[in-house]
Amino acid sequence: MATHKLLMLPGDGIGPEVMAQVEQIVSWFGKQGLASFEIEKGLVGGAAYDAHKAAISEGDMKLAQQADAVLFGAVGGPKWADVPYQHRPEAGLLRLRKDLGLFANLRPAICYPALASASSLKPEVVEGLDILIVRELTGGVYFGEPKEIVTLEDGSKRGIDTQLYTTPEIDRICRVAFELARTRRNKVSSAEKHNVMKTGVLWKQTVTALHAAEYKDVELEHVLADNCAMQLVRWPKQYDVIVTDNLFGDILSDVAAMLTGSLGMLPSASLGAEDPATGKRKALYEPVHGSAPDIAGKGLANPIAMIGSFAMALRYSFGAIEAADRLEGAIADVLGSGTRTKDIAAPGANAVSTSEMGQAIVKAL
Amino acid sequence: MATHKLLMLPGDGIGPEVMAQVEQIVSWFGKQGLASFEIEKGLVGGAAYDAHKAAISEGDMKLAQQADAVLFGAVGGPKWADVPYQHRPEAGLLRLRKDLGLFANLRPAICYPALASASSLKPEVVEGLDILIVRELTGGVYFGEPKEIVTLEDGSKRGIDTQLYTTPEIDRICRVAFELARTRRNKVSSAEKHNVMKTGVLWKQTVTALHAAEYKDVELEHVLADNCAMQLVRWPKQYDVIVTDNLFGDILSDVAAMLTGSLGMLPSASLGAEDPATGKRKALYEPVHGSAPDIAGKGLANPIAMIGSFAMALRYSFGAIEAADRLEGAIADVLGSGTRTKDIAAPGANAVSTSEMGQAIVKAL
Ligand SMILES: CC(C)[C@H](C(=O)O)[C@@H](O)C(=O)O
Ligand SMILES: CC(C)[C@H](C(=O)O)[C@@H](O)C(=O)O
Repeated sequence: MATHKLLMLPGDGIGPEVMAQVEQIVSWFGKQGLASFEIEKGLVGGAAYDAHKAAISEGDMKLAQQADAVLFGAVGGPKWADVPYQHRPEAGLLRLRKDLGLFANLRPAICYPALASASSLKPEVVEGLDILIVRELTGGVYFGEPKEIVTLEDGSKRGIDTQLYTTPEIDRICRVAFELARTRRNKVSSAEKHNVMKTGVLWKQTVTALHAAEYKDVELEHVLADNCAMQLVRWPKQYDVIVTDNLFGDILSDVAAMLTGSLGMLPSASLGAEDPATGKRKALYEPVHGSAPDIAGKGLANPIAMIGSFAMALRYSFGAIEAADRLEGAIADVLGSGTRTKDIAAPGANAVSTSEMGQAIVKAL
Repeated sequence: MATHKLLMLPGDGIGPEVMAQVEQIVSWFGKQGLASFEIEKGLVGGAAYDAHKAAISEGDMKLAQQADAVLFGAVGGPKWADVPYQHRPEAGLLRLRKDLGLFANLRPAICYPALASASSLKPEVVEGLDILIVRELTGGVYFGEPKEIVTLEDGSKRGIDTQLYTTPEIDRICRVAFELARTRRNKVSSAEKHNVMKTGVLWKQTVTALHAAEYKDVELEHVLADNCAMQLVRWPKQYDVIVTDNLFGDILSDVAAMLTGSLGMLPSASLGAEDPATGKRKALYEPVHGSAPDIAGKGLANPIAMIGSFAMALRYSFGAIEAADRLEGAIADVLGSGTRTKDIAAPGANAVSTSEMGQAIVKAL
């Protein structure tokens, strides 16, 4: 049995609490002899800044490069509001994405039947919702240069960010979307603003050409990003896979996640290119939710998004499909039995703590 | 009684149908001697391209410069999918915004009580919703240079868009937001991505400084644009005025509009700076909805967003507050009496046509 190298970066806020639940699950799999993991731990975000004066240390970056998968909790909080910009907690996450080449961010938005009532949308709009946002993660306005603030002659300032995309960058992310659509309902909606942005024009041309050349069996539609946001609110079930750039993906995936009423439940995967020599790809798995500093340390956080992220790691990084199915099944069973953390409990109903939820899932395995 | 110069640019799709209803209202005000208008008409978008091979002619741009207010319908449609990029229908709208200096786009998102059930959100989430998005409209990634597609040495292409903001640009739009908040619930939420974008850093600094210097009586909060999109879906009533940049404003205002279930009902105003000599400001008024080519010419369009846009013109450009109140009251009365176009009628219920709705409003004046 191969040993998988797993790097855990719990980060800040509720990150460590939810990561602790994954540790129990990892050791359960180890004890059962179902999978073998070699676990390293590191710091990221504010926690790394406090220790090393950097949002991630060079040592931890090296561990991330060597790991088969990185499990990432969450970063940030008011404590680090005033650290120098290059060391802000998010910089650790952005560096991991960029340096590991994690260009494909997969964000499923699934409305769990037991939780449909937690959505702010009407039940008929979200019940059974299962869409996947495929977000480009290493390009666009996040990383384009120039990216700076300059002082002008008259003393005023000018801020600049640069949105850059090349055809190979667009091609490879759209390829991921088409491949995944083939395993689902076979439809890709490509979201951009070609009516205003040249990167949008190039995006639309590139996805159209790729579709015509290799993916004619998949349905492709083009949608303006603003309209896509609207349509997600109006009738999200019209979508299967949505592919979009880094910035639009940031917003659209948050809207999609919130529709489901399951924000504390949603995992994500960020994948790099396959190494032709080893067949492996770098990967990072993280919950869609943030560090929630207001509830940190109180045992209120829902660990399911983090545990579900580990299930995605089992599936995508370790090829442990059975183990992934088993873990996802355990999550479904626990939910089915009515166990709820506060975020997903009905108002006034009993709720379990972060670790009680973690234990319940281990027990259901 | 001053005569107001009004330029009507109906545009494409349902634009001309909904504009026709405003014409009746204008002539009613004229006949009653309540206000006097000098009306010019022009072409914009695909209609302008068909006539002049440009998305707006120089002659119509001149009329727009001379008008006290421009009423704009909607532009675009599949017919013009392949016109040269610089002549695409949207280019007419973008040029009007830029050349008239219409930096402040006001988009109210109001959930009309009679229509709350048309929303995809639960009634308690949207009933009574009344928020205002103040969107910067002449800067950011919409207009920054370079904005181009270049072919690289290896034959691949690179698209570039540039997000640019200066402190004076940010200052003047935030000023509009603070002033409007004072007439409402006294709260401004400023949305940006300072964790990723330098323009976001500058935005946050600038609004913070302006607040401290001149608007301490108004509550100011900062919210990341992705989180703002989420919060709009989760609990939109937490907001009063949201101020944001051109691109985020495009998306957030569409989400906000869709929440209300009243997309065919929402007007918008785009305002320029006050001319210190005349006290006048250039202005353009347009519905939030688009040209809806699929229903064009069928009498199905809801003219209320266009008529409401004219009411905003009465209020903001002509200082005709009484007339504006009267027109908005007439719209409310007609809705109160149960008159509905198809988009806001209950499924299977009777609906009136575009012109019947227009006539009902004239009658209610
Ligand atoms: C924390 C932040 C840098 C990040 C982003 O903007 O990508 C977050 O919002 C996300 O979506 O993962
Ligand atoms: C038509 C298009 C150029 C425009 C925009 O992106 O600003 C529209 O979406 C809007 O919001 O007015």
